Amino acid sequence: MYPPTPERTDMTAPLANLSIDLNADLGEGFGRWQLTDDEALLSIVTSANVACGFHAGDPSTMRRVCELAAERGVRVGAQVSYRDLAGFGRRSMDVPARELADEIAYQIGALEIFARAAGTRVRYVKPHGALYNRCVHDEAQADAVVEGVRLATGGPLPVLGLPGSRLHEAARAAGLPVIAEAFADRAYTAAGTLVPRGEPHAVVHDPDTVVKRALGFARDRAVTSVDGRRVEVDVRSLCVHGDTPGAADLAHRVRSELAAAGVRVAAFT
Amino acid sequence: MYPPTPERTDMTAPLANLSIDLNADLGEGFGRWQLTDDEALLSIVTSANVACGFHAGDPSTMRRVCELAAERGVRVGAQVSYRDLAGFGRRSMDVPARELADEIAYQIGALEIFARAAGTRVRYVKPHGALYNRCVHDEAQADAVVEGVRLATGGPLPVLGLPGSRLHEAARAAGLPVIAEAFADRAYTAAGTLVPRGEPHAVVHDPDTVVKRALGFARDRAVTSVDGRRVEVDVRSLCVHGDTPGAADLAHRVRSELAAAGVRVAAFT
Amino acid sequence: MYPPTPERTDMTAPLANLSIDLNADLGEGFGRWQLTDDEALLSIVTSANVACGFHAGDPSTMRRVCELAAERGVRVGAQVSYRDLAGFGRRSMDVPARELADEIAYQIGALEIFARAAGTRVRYVKPHGALYNRCVHDEAQADAVVEGVRLATGGPLPVLGLPGSRLHEAARAAGLPVIAEAFADRAYTAAGTLVPRGEPHAVVHDPDTVVKRALGFARDRAVTSVDGRRVEVDVRSLCVHGDTPGAADLAHRVRSELAAAGVRVAAFT
Amino acid sequence: MYPPTPERTDMTAPLANLSIDLNADLGEGFGRWQLTDDEALLSIVTSANVACGFHAGDPSTMRRVCELAAERGVRVGAQVSYRDLAGFGRRSMDVPARELADEIAYQIGALEIFARAAGTRVRYVKPHGALYNRCVHDEAQADAVVEGVRLATGGPLPVLGLPGSRLHEAARAAGLPVIAEAFADRAYTAAGTLVPRGEPHAVVHDPDTVVKRALGFARDRAVTSVDGRRVEVDVRSLCVHGDTPGAADLAHRVRSELAAAGVRVAAFT
Repeated sequence: MYPPTPERTDMTAPLANLSIDLNADLGEGFGRWQLTDDEALLSIVTSANVACGFHAGDPSTMRRVCELAAERGVRVGAQVSYRDLAGFGRRSMDVPARELADEIAYQIGALEIFARAAGTRVRYVKPHGALYNRCVHDEAQADAVVEGVRLATGGPLPVLGLPGSRLHEAARAAGLPVIAEAFADRAYTAAGTLVPRGEPHAVVHDPDTVVKRALGFARDRAVTSVDGRRVEVDVRSLCVHGDTPGAADLAHRVRSELAAAGVRVAAFT
Repeated sequence: MYPPTPERTDMTAPLANLSIDLNADLGEGFGRWQLTDDEALLSIVTSANVACGFHAGDPSTMRRVCELAAERGVRVGAQVSYRDLAGFGRRSMDVPARELADEIAYQIGALEIFARAAGTRVRYVKPHGALYNRCVHDEAQADAVVEGVRLATGGPLPVLGLPGSRLHEAARAAGLPVIAEAFADRAYTAAGTLVPRGEPHAVVHDPDTVVKRALGFARDRAVTSVDGRRVEVDVRSLCVHGDTPGAADLAHRVRSELAAAGVRVAAFT
Repeated sequence: MYPPTPERTDMTAPLANLSIDLNADLGEGFGRWQLTDDEALLSIVTSANVACGFHAGDPSTMRRVCELAAERGVRVGAQVSYRDLAGFGRRSMDVPARELADEIAYQIGALEIFARAAGTRVRYVKPHGALYNRCVHDEAQADAVVEGVRLATGGPLPVLGLPGSRLHEAARAAGLPVIAEAFADRAYTAAGTLVPRGEPHAVVHDPDTVVKRALGFARDRAVTSVDGRRVEVDVRSLCVHGDTPGAADLAHRVRSELAAAGVRVAAFT
Repeated sequence: MYPPTPERTDMTAPLANLSIDLNADLGEGFGRWQLTDDEALLSIVTSANVACGFHAGDPSTMRRVCELAAERGVRVGAQVSYRDLAGFGRRSMDVPARELADEIAYQIGALEIFARAAGTRVRYVKPHGALYNRCVHDEAQADAVVEGVRLATGGPLPVLGLPGSRLHEAARAAGLPVIAEAFADRAYTAAGTLVPRGEPHAVVHDPDTVVKRALGFARDRAVTSVDGRRVEVDVRSLCVHGDTPGAADLAHRVRSELAAAGVRVAAFT
């Protein structure tokens, strides 16, 4: 566990546009298997995307992550996925819309129980892996995810995702708030979309560059594209990764430097 | 679907002790596979033990059963199980207490979403199969199930089970209401316990006898044991089976003859 | 179980081109759930596509189907699928090629044990559901399936599929024999491909028409397309369905009328 | 990967009774999750207990472990388990005998494919986790495991387990060879049985003691019991653990010191 970063006790409110949320995928073990460093990341991020059992996340892990998140004031979100433990939710699946909506609702419901038991609630929904990628452009599945959110909550639960995605369009059309996020370790095109994994330079590996890009998103709402242009990307959350060695250290460094630069790190409201 | 039985519209309140609940396991298909005749049974029973995905019950089936149950005024209960699709929850498992409690809460949470979406709530919990049998005598697992119910609901949700079971003791100790149930198609010992399956005459196959025993439970709170004695069994619910050919017909007949005998068939309160 | 049809004991060899194989998907239950009428179909078909546990098919069912098939001289084939019990293998999945090949090999290996224990062997492979459909046109997955077959067997195991499919191209390129099959209850385009499900008239429901089309495939190697033309379709096997009520009756009728028309019903060699 | 230990190139054959096998559980990841350090352990052990997909072990991992094992001359064994990914096979289950036998055969069959593809074969079977523990004393399940081995292989495949266990009795009764193993990091009673986990001092944590006990088993066929007596334990294999940090280092040290003490480390024959 990392010590709290300074801005946590800073009573001087920074400018509103100098506030950013940090979110990470958590609870991505399953039974005997561990993956994410939940303990460390829950002292860094402000929003926890908790796996709900379909790509990862057994009930006891879900409960523990909710308890820790509640204790530390981290916002709990449902990280919903295709039903695919063997593929960790990374294999796109042609799930019929109604079935997908019901699977989404099921996962949110299961997590909600542990969130409530920990004294909090599920505050947002974020699709995982292949479902996340598919909902960038697949209207039917984006609609199904939003339908699942509505079915599960009956209310305006925010949907976390890529700005400009079909998912955000579907959420808006259904009257749900959207939270736009960016990835400091992913390359962007001049159009403001992610360079697909598999293409050269899609992932930024250098920690210094990652930190610099995080600051750029938070302070300037902009990033430099692969072809060297300045691209404005209006985001309220940064996704930090937690499933690789050193991930928590990098996330901690991002948070610290955001704080040092006067950016308030806080959950979106 | 069966036509409504007479007592549904009978405005004359029968004597309180001539009221009985009928419960059945429902939604026990999974994806392509169907098992229980949900449509027919939901026009007969007053309480629906809905499978929650661990031994059976995919999200779309859970949703549909909740919708039908709500529409017909049938009470929704969570039929919780070991995680065992391959064995249909019929294989006793040594699940550690904490893990079991969390698995129970997970299932209740998932069902609660569909119950709420249908305009109702999960009104009780009933363990399924091997977990049901084990909780008759296994204190640790009975406690874990009750802990899971408390975790999931935070309130006094009734637990449906065998009178005299460890499960009911654990529920009472935790301040939860208990609902005692009987099986009209199972033989009883002189001590009022079930004759274990596998022993001779454990199951009553003759429909006439089943109906007669159902009447006995409902009207006299008593049954004739395998050795011919009258045994008092104070129950508020009768379990009817729905997973065998002709099951719905037999359940319908039980309900009709209860009504004809002046027994009010209604969900426990 | 149906009585043996006449040609079984007919010692007069029919013309070679008047021989056809009948295949059906079998063993598609899972644990408590049953689907296909294995007992009846194994007295009708000459090739059994046995589910291997990924979309359906628990080990005890696999064993039983292999034993019955061996006893009745029915050829055993591995009906391989995506890992998707919840979706019955009907949801197309973007499984990476290497992973898919290994999953195919795993399934074949598991079935081979039960085939050998029953005194026979796995004689062919047929993809199931969404994998079958995808391998009609998806080169990467077709190659992966063939790679899995080669990995599992090291030898020239036949691959059953649609004539003209990518799967058959991949099999041929790898030196594996191919068996072309047709569906008597599906509509065909003038190009000899299946009319996609979802389009009007894609499925032929009238039993008389199904039987007539089966005869056409077997005797004339031809079918009438949706737009009324005669299309030549050179097939050596007909797929009969076994998962709907009345399916075994229809399959039995197809077999009887083939026999009556002088067509020899026998497994491909 | 560790460098080969000296005895590998030592052409002087040691005394036959100074030969010992080292076995470890390998391939215990699943999809995205890794657990055992397969690469390192396959340069240390002489027998690899490969997970077969029921408690761990996806097809691609099974294939890779078989390929590495074959390449390094490590013997491949099937580490069979209850079907329990969520509990990692550590929860005892009341699986009916026939069903259990078929599940065992299924797992062996799947692994056999990858062993053959790698140019080797499944050479032995070892139950995992709760099934291992249960087969020490449960006759019905021990018989079922042996029945599964016979079903899968039709021949005399050795069964690895605790000396004196029901599993070994069942194997012997069925004409299968047995391989007795010991655990250098587990305490023994004066009767030569393991001190149950959960009791004080059940596990030996000090590396020096573990190494010393390994030498004792290999050289003297004896160990000191918890109450300080010398107990003879005639074993042909030592189980080293591979799923904890530092496990491979300890295993490597055990192997090195066995070699230094003149004990030949080699797979049982």
